[in-house]
Amino acid sequence: MPINQQILLDSRPQGAATADNFRLVTTDTPALAEGQVLVRHHYLSLDPYMRGRMNEGKSYAACQPLGEVMIGGTVGEVVQSRHARYAVGDKVVGMGGWQEYSVVDGDEAGALRVVDGGAVPLSYYLGAVGMPGVTAWYGLTQIIEPKPGQTLTVSAATGAVGSAFAALAKARGCRVVGIAGGPLKCAYAVDELGFDACIDHREHGDLRAMSQALKAACPDGIDGHFENVGGTVLDAVLLRANAFSRVALCGMIAGYDGQPLPLLNPALMLVNRMRVEGFIVSEHLQLWPQALAELTGLVRAGKLHPRETVAQGLASAPEAFIGLLHGKNVGKQLVRLV
Amino acid sequence: MPINQQILLDSRPQGAATADNFRLVTTDTPALAEGQVLVRHHYLSLDPYMRGRMNEGKSYAACQPLGEVMIGGTVGEVVQSRHARYAVGDKVVGMGGWQEYSVVDGDEAGALRVVDGGAVPLSYYLGAVGMPGVTAWYGLTQIIEPKPGQTLTVSAATGAVGSAFAALAKARGCRVVGIAGGPLKCAYAVDELGFDACIDHREHGDLRAMSQALKAACPDGIDGHFENVGGTVLDAVLLRANAFSRVALCGMIAGYDGQPLPLLNPALMLVNRMRVEGFIVSEHLQLWPQALAELTGLVRAGKLHPRETVAQGLASAPEAFIGLLHGKNVGKQLVRLV
Repeated sequence: MPINQQILLDSRPQGAATADNFRLVTTDTPALAEGQVLVRHHYLSLDPYMRGRMNEGKSYAACQPLGEVMIGGTVGEVVQSRHARYAVGDKVVGMGGWQEYSVVDGDEAGALRVVDGGAVPLSYYLGAVGMPGVTAWYGLTQIIEPKPGQTLTVSAATGAVGSAFAALAKARGCRVVGIAGGPLKCAYAVDELGFDACIDHREHGDLRAMSQALKAACPDGIDGHFENVGGTVLDAVLLRANAFSRVALCGMIAGYDGQPLPLLNPALMLVNRMRVEGFIVSEHLQLWPQALAELTGLVRAGKLHPRETVAQGLASAPEAFIGLLHGKNVGKQLVRLV
Repeated sequence: MPINQQILLDSRPQGAATADNFRLVTTDTPALAEGQVLVRHHYLSLDPYMRGRMNEGKSYAACQPLGEVMIGGTVGEVVQSRHARYAVGDKVVGMGGWQEYSVVDGDEAGALRVVDGGAVPLSYYLGAVGMPGVTAWYGLTQIIEPKPGQTLTVSAATGAVGSAFAALAKARGCRVVGIAGGPLKCAYAVDELGFDACIDHREHGDLRAMSQALKAACPDGIDGHFENVGGTVLDAVLLRANAFSRVALCGMIAGYDGQPLPLLNPALMLVNRMRVEGFIVSEHLQLWPQALAELTGLVRAGKLHPRETVAQGLASAPEAFIGLLHGKNVGKQLVRLV
């Protein structure tokens, strides 16, 4: 059996997460029982939600247990199979975690999804044509429900969710304005991702400056907003929101380090008759086929071709993850394991 | 022509509103032009939204101009008519303002609504079978959309909106828990309005105490909340909200005096996958007939019989209004003008 490297959660963060919270171990892969398959991971996805799982306490999902392999999305290849539905060589997406191999019960609903290895690059199944892409699709189509010509905004604009959001919004005839950190990301958003404009939140760090930047970039106001971050951007969006505007709440990364970030003026939700709705895309699996079909089409038509930031080797995952939390990646953050 | 007493907005509040912000004047009612009717008001409605109109600046509605008659809902009787659709003696609901008589253009859409003077007491058309009742109905049926057996909460529980909310929620098989100020209001909520429980926010004034009181009163969590107030109650509700719960935002009275009230932990909207939606009932006129029919039925069946607090005479309106803002009324606050 092949040797497997794994990364475990070793301790819970006190404040910011650090590489010391993780531990790398080496084990053997076990022999397969009937019905199981062994998957060799090609790519591990690193995503902001993982930070929330590292904390104890109430969240929408069970917290990550200490001493166990960190949760994470993976794409790879079946290398052994004792299940009739999976053949060696099948390309599969799953939640294999921060490790090189995973043993999966082939009968567990939703545990593995066979994908077309030739349709798009395999890594895209963790980004544009995977969970982040479907996340953008859900917030846009099920909560924001935009009309052509409306103005939409999205924070963390150059991430995997933001880039898919831009392509999906442009396909619906909307003006789409991103918020990202730094001039390089903002140029990338406009030049490569199709954003109509992009606001640098480092240049417009306080509420007044962000509100003025939004006013300049959204002269007709904001009809829909996709929130990946929380904090000042959301406060500023509420100041520029139109009547009957909608906010899809997907991430509150800025509050993950322990301190809740208040919303300064929630009365604006009433003044603007807004709908603000939080969601988790994994709770809406029935919509994934429809979303993935549209996203695949956009990729194949050349309308969605986001960059990736790829770390090499499992041991690089903790530093890459902490870099992601600090916005150091451009586009989808991956770890290549082969 | 009869003499008309009017109350004008004389100055904008600096902080809390006071009686000095208003001015009583006496005028003649003008002779009617063709198409006009003269309405003698029996009751003037006093409502929290009026406080928002007294401020300058962006709100969902035009601010109340200085030197003009204060806006307000009225119910009364046609005493002169030069419009074919209105006869002397008709009972009518309108936005006559803080005055004893109003001259109304009979052709203006929605300006006057003829009501059945015998179906329910005339004053109810300003409360349970009027704007407040429809407000409760809209938030409950169009935003909260409860299922039988679910637990709902409402702040300002003994007001005109809260009392209608309780009757409508009980009619749908829900557990309904009120939040009100003081033991007398809480006893009234349970004994007369049909609430299953009522929490005294004066006894549970901080977030921790309110959250614990909600936990005790809502052992299965909160599935829907109707917010008339904002502030600590809303923060506490978010701590007790179930997955996929909904909040109808109708009022933020606690913030009207100038200081925005922050929402302490908006990330809970994501953690709980909540929908939070603000609305103004006057923007949904197409739903009023359906709502009024249900509310009339509840009144006539004896299932909705809220108390009223009635001030006598137009000159008493400013003090009664300020009392309303401080929670001194029980049930619907009215001014009787005949």
